[in-house]
Amino acid sequence: MIAIVNVFLKEGVLDPQGKAVHHALDTMKFEGVEDVRIGKQIIIKLSETSKAKAIEEVTKMAEDILANTVIENYTIEIVE
Amino acid sequence: MIAIVNVFLKEGVLDPQGKAVHHALDTMKFEGVEDVRIGKQIIIKLSETSKAKAIEEVTKMAEDILANTVIENYTIEIVE
Repeated sequence: MIAIVNVFLKEGVLDPQGKAVHHALDTMKFEGVEDVRIGKQIIIKLSETSKAKAIEEVTKMAEDILANTVIENYTIEIVE
Repeated sequence: MIAIVNVFLKEGVLDPQGKAVHHALDTMKFEGVEDVRIGKQIIIKLSETSKAKAIEEVTKMAEDILANTVIENYTIEIVE
């Protein structure tokens, strides 16, 4: 079973990496870019076969170590 | 229009960040974790309204600056 955890900064939290990429895109004459935000995508391969248990386990991982919930949100998706 | 670009290391390329998270999860007694890979998720807000043109533009961005295509693959998704 594969879980995909997307971790991204909360709305309103400054994203310097995104700002840097936005600036670079402007410099390279890409037009019409209004905003860039950069997050992490964590792909976890689990031996667990129950989808419900996998979500429970991965939620705990996200809360404990993958995301800093003070400034970051996360989404969890189980793909197979 | 919002484009999501997922950039991840190619199969076979060492992912030290993923290895570190895998190790941390093991240390924290999370069981059944077989593999962890970590990629970047870049969310770009575009003023472009044509989906085809947005894909074309974002593909160029990915090739030119967002991904290092020697060691990384990317996927592009247009969400709205």
